[in-house]
Amino acid sequence: MKFLSFLREGSSGFGVVVDGGVIDLTGRLSGEVVTLRQAIAAEMLGAAADYASGRHPDLGWSDITFLPVIPDPAKILCIGLNYQKHKQETGRPDVEYPTVFTRYADSQVGHRQAMIKPGVSERFDYEGEMAVIMGRGGRNIPAETALGHVAGYACYNEGSVRDWQRHTFLFTPGKTFPGTGAFGPYMVTTDEVGDYTRLPIQTRLNGEVMQDAKLSDLIFPVEQLIAYCSTFTPLAPGDVIVSGTPGGVGDKRTPPVYLFPGDTVEVEIGCLGTLRNPVMGEDAV
Amino acid sequence: MKFLSFLREGSSGFGVVVDGGVIDLTGRLSGEVVTLRQAIAAEMLGAAADYASGRHPDLGWSDITFLPVIPDPAKILCIGLNYQKHKQETGRPDVEYPTVFTRYADSQVGHRQAMIKPGVSERFDYEGEMAVIMGRGGRNIPAETALGHVAGYACYNEGSVRDWQRHTFLFTPGKTFPGTGAFGPYMVTTDEVGDYTRLPIQTRLNGEVMQDAKLSDLIFPVEQLIAYCSTFTPLAPGDVIVSGTPGGVGDKRTPPVYLFPGDTVEVEIGCLGTLRNPVMGEDAV
Repeated sequence: MKFLSFLREGSSGFGVVVDGGVIDLTGRLSGEVVTLRQAIAAEMLGAAADYASGRHPDLGWSDITFLPVIPDPAKILCIGLNYQKHKQETGRPDVEYPTVFTRYADSQVGHRQAMIKPGVSERFDYEGEMAVIMGRGGRNIPAETALGHVAGYACYNEGSVRDWQRHTFLFTPGKTFPGTGAFGPYMVTTDEVGDYTRLPIQTRLNGEVMQDAKLSDLIFPVEQLIAYCSTFTPLAPGDVIVSGTPGGVGDKRTPPVYLFPGDTVEVEIGCLGTLRNPVMGEDAV
Repeated sequence: MKFLSFLREGSSGFGVVVDGGVIDLTGRLSGEVVTLRQAIAAEMLGAAADYASGRHPDLGWSDITFLPVIPDPAKILCIGLNYQKHKQETGRPDVEYPTVFTRYADSQVGHRQAMIKPGVSERFDYEGEMAVIMGRGGRNIPAETALGHVAGYACYNEGSVRDWQRHTFLFTPGKTFPGTGAFGPYMVTTDEVGDYTRLPIQTRLNGEVMQDAKLSDLIFPVEQLIAYCSTFTPLAPGDVIVSGTPGGVGDKRTPPVYLFPGDTVEVEIGCLGTLRNPVMGEDAV
């Protein structure tokens, strides 16, 4: 199943993708369940499948504006340097533990929404990544059972403002500007994905391949990320772990490549689909 | 005025400190305003003063359990290395910009609540700091007018798990364990504080002075922190900027000093009062 969050006629909702469009699930599984995060927390994804079975779509693709898959995660934990080739291009040493930073929910945009190049920087860069959306939450989740806590996976473009990221040794300022984190088009549930490590991941800038890897290249796989992160902070349904970017970021190219208004960036991850975003200047918002 | 958040008879609320106790403001300024964050967002601190004027306290000190001053800030932005003596003891170079990381709201505890030493670490350390609580929010707030966006100030003990903080070069894992961020006892409004730079700050461990400085020692003063942070992320009412810790952290002492069950830590900042917390082991929670 593919679940998504959207705007239609000015109000937000969530639904499930079927042939020809979307079945609106907003308030239909339970009056209190009006967001995808709430549906995950209420363990209603199975009920959603039953509801959708045999129904025709309520909404065509032109009826909706995509929102970030989870517009309101309580926590977005981002992993740095989790592909060997990217770690090498940054010149960082091997580490025993995942490199973790955070991003705020209000930095996110959905599929087809514009990613925003900040006015204060000319070094806005893409980072194609696979996002892990938590199903059951928990603390101290063992790696052995961690994949059972995942609701699904989605594409993420963890847009990074490189000069602000390097103002000091901590990344935060460059990693949470409004409009820099693209998340979509939808979440594909774990049963439909199967073994995530077989997925290819590719980032394209104006059609040109910039990053090309596979999820089996992750230095710390998803189950270890969940185990590690849930040791220092409780994870809740709908929380997001963004698992790291492959080699080929714009900032480490010769010459460097940055994002500017008019560009289009795509992140494609096998059966997770293609996340496509135009880039817009902050002054045009 | 001094505002605080508390539990009484199992439910949470907020109020204002008066002689002999607390006037309960929960739902009394407006039916929808049941948290201090909501009162700040609704610009009702002035109305609270009117409501409290001439009234007797509803609650004695023994009737309440302190909660973190703001139990539910959307953003807690922490500043590292913002006192010269602390920067020197860590061996970090001068920087042009504030060093910023984040902490989650669910890592906080209130005055007199136990700070929790994680089971996975023997390197739990104190960091006495002054917290800045945002009043009016905004983006790109100029330093010149930034202090007008502050609702008030409070003591913060930005408890740090040193080994987890140094698993990699990014601090996040060591800075947001549950029960490690103490925030209280109350927020003192800016009109009552006046010039915050004149405030002394002192951290005591079991009565012994461990950190002793003044707020005028801040490398980046509060107005610059607000201007910088609001450039990369919008700030909202009730958001918290924790402004950095003076020299004298336990981890940099010879021999190092860490927190263990049975210890008591105090952070005292002039008219902001004294935040006092016992330390408890995770297994005792």
